[in-house]
Amino acid sequence: MQFIEEYTAEIEYEISQLKTPKTPTQLYDPIRYFIDLGGKRIRPILTLLGGEMFGLHKKQTIKAALAIEIFHNFTLLHDDIMDQAPLRRNKTTVHKKWNLNTAILSGDVLLVNAYQLLQQQQGNIRELLFLFNKTAVEVCEGQQIDLNFESQNNITIQEYEEMIRLKTSVLLACALEMSAIIAQTNQQNRQHIANFGLNIGLAFQIMDDILDLYADPTKFGKQIGGDIIANKKTMLHLLAIQQANNLQKQKLETIKHEKNKKTKITQTKMLFDQLNIKELATQKVNTYFEIAQQEIKEIDVSQKNKEKLIKLSYFLLDRQS
Amino acid sequence: MQFIEEYTAEIEYEISQLKTPKTPTQLYDPIRYFIDLGGKRIRPILTLLGGEMFGLHKKQTIKAALAIEIFHNFTLLHDDIMDQAPLRRNKTTVHKKWNLNTAILSGDVLLVNAYQLLQQQQGNIRELLFLFNKTAVEVCEGQQIDLNFESQNNITIQEYEEMIRLKTSVLLACALEMSAIIAQTNQQNRQHIANFGLNIGLAFQIMDDILDLYADPTKFGKQIGGDIIANKKTMLHLLAIQQANNLQKQKLETIKHEKNKKTKITQTKMLFDQLNIKELATQKVNTYFEIAQQEIKEIDVSQKNKEKLIKLSYFLLDRQS
Repeated sequence: MQFIEEYTAEIEYEISQLKTPKTPTQLYDPIRYFIDLGGKRIRPILTLLGGEMFGLHKKQTIKAALAIEIFHNFTLLHDDIMDQAPLRRNKTTVHKKWNLNTAILSGDVLLVNAYQLLQQQQGNIRELLFLFNKTAVEVCEGQQIDLNFESQNNITIQEYEEMIRLKTSVLLACALEMSAIIAQTNQQNRQHIANFGLNIGLAFQIMDDILDLYADPTKFGKQIGGDIIANKKTMLHLLAIQQANNLQKQKLETIKHEKNKKTKITQTKMLFDQLNIKELATQKVNTYFEIAQQEIKEIDVSQKNKEKLIKLSYFLLDRQS
Repeated sequence: MQFIEEYTAEIEYEISQLKTPKTPTQLYDPIRYFIDLGGKRIRPILTLLGGEMFGLHKKQTIKAALAIEIFHNFTLLHDDIMDQAPLRRNKTTVHKKWNLNTAILSGDVLLVNAYQLLQQQQGNIRELLFLFNKTAVEVCEGQQIDLNFESQNNITIQEYEEMIRLKTSVLLACALEMSAIIAQTNQQNRQHIANFGLNIGLAFQIMDDILDLYADPTKFGKQIGGDIIANKKTMLHLLAIQQANNLQKQKLETIKHEKNKKTKITQTKMLFDQLNIKELATQKVNTYFEIAQQEIKEIDVSQKNKEKLIKLSYFLLDRQS
């Protein structure tokens, strides 16, 4: 969609204009490297679009938008260490390209940088800070719960949804709610836009799980079936366990130890297809997406003002990567 | 000194009252463990005393004081990872007792917790946040420069002083300057109290280097000569290199590889004594200490109001541990 590309380009430009000191180079080179890796820049776009919906110019919300994006980059940088990830957006991760200490410390500085941007945002700074802090803690809690899942069995779908709510959705909600705080709109509007973001976030994250296996390989940026190879407990996996009979459960357990990647993916997919997993997961996506649409409907501004945000939400769900 | 013990106890109590959620336990158990390890609690005491000097009750500065202390704990927790330290205050460090990921993530949450406390501080929150952010970045820069020193030769005394200014002194200055912001005192007073803190910090840190070798072993909490064994480039080491002739420089280089710890310490100390290092370092301490006293003298409040802060500064310099 044309307007999304324009907004992305604008955020890219703003990020390119962020000042990073020259020294110590061991600290600022990785920061510059990491924030220039790009990405969808969804979160800051949400803040800008939220602000415009409430009648603000982009200039009036840009600092908060950048604060959210830099915070998101901080979480990615530290998550890459914890996940021992070699690549981020097809480039070497900071802890691999430099080292562990540099990755920890440059992540710490990115977090403070986010607060520096927030400090420059006009509006009720105490309220913005309260929301930002609360969200930041929740995102860390979500990451911890996700780490716990690696060694935890019998994760319920409810627990999984709580994890993605914390790890992903609250930040999208925060990106939008900040625009409501800056616009000084009423409490109802603020709650509705936050809920819109939260439910889009849940739909988005479950869609991510679906795409990992069912995306169009010619359009998908990563390897298809990566989650299966890594034995990740995704929504697809949890739904499969929920639906499976004892024999199928045993089969799922056996496949986990399959060494041949292609066989592992094919066999899992066959089982998922028997159990109707893609459809069940898609139903979940649709449910959250519909709640989100209901929430934005309730916001007390003109339909015209909501258009871009609604279009963006459809774009996020229709994606193939 | 009686009043210092009272203030320390008060800070300990306030920290014990800080709410930490129960779950995820993997995140909050290490946080609780770490902040309960204790310590001198110098930084928050500085904020309380600064506030009182400007006529504020402790209640009026306690949130900022706690924010500083929690931020300090965040830096210690992450520094312990980077230094691969097994012990902190004679207890197992978080990354050893739990693991790397837990240490990174609980440190991250501590940093956000510091901002949560700051958010609750009365006063000009935007100014407080600006100072806090600036200081936080400087502390991280100081840590990076310190890490660089490990593999760097020919460090100048000026570079070393810049490192300790960033890593240690600016936080002491910030602790005091925040009290000036909260009290809404004039710009001159604010600058003087910040400079007082900065110079006390420099004196304090060089004193730390001296104590590592010259403390009374019956009163010193750690092993005497630990810096020498670790070949740390302390102020003593840098002064020795500055003062040494070529033969003595060679000797210093040779001692670095000595395996016997006792011999290593004794031989280094002999050389330091020949070069008058203890006196030279003490002169530096005294110079910064005197500047600090000059700065506090300039503050436009009654002498009586300055008493506790001056006493604390003497206490910090007279210590044996």
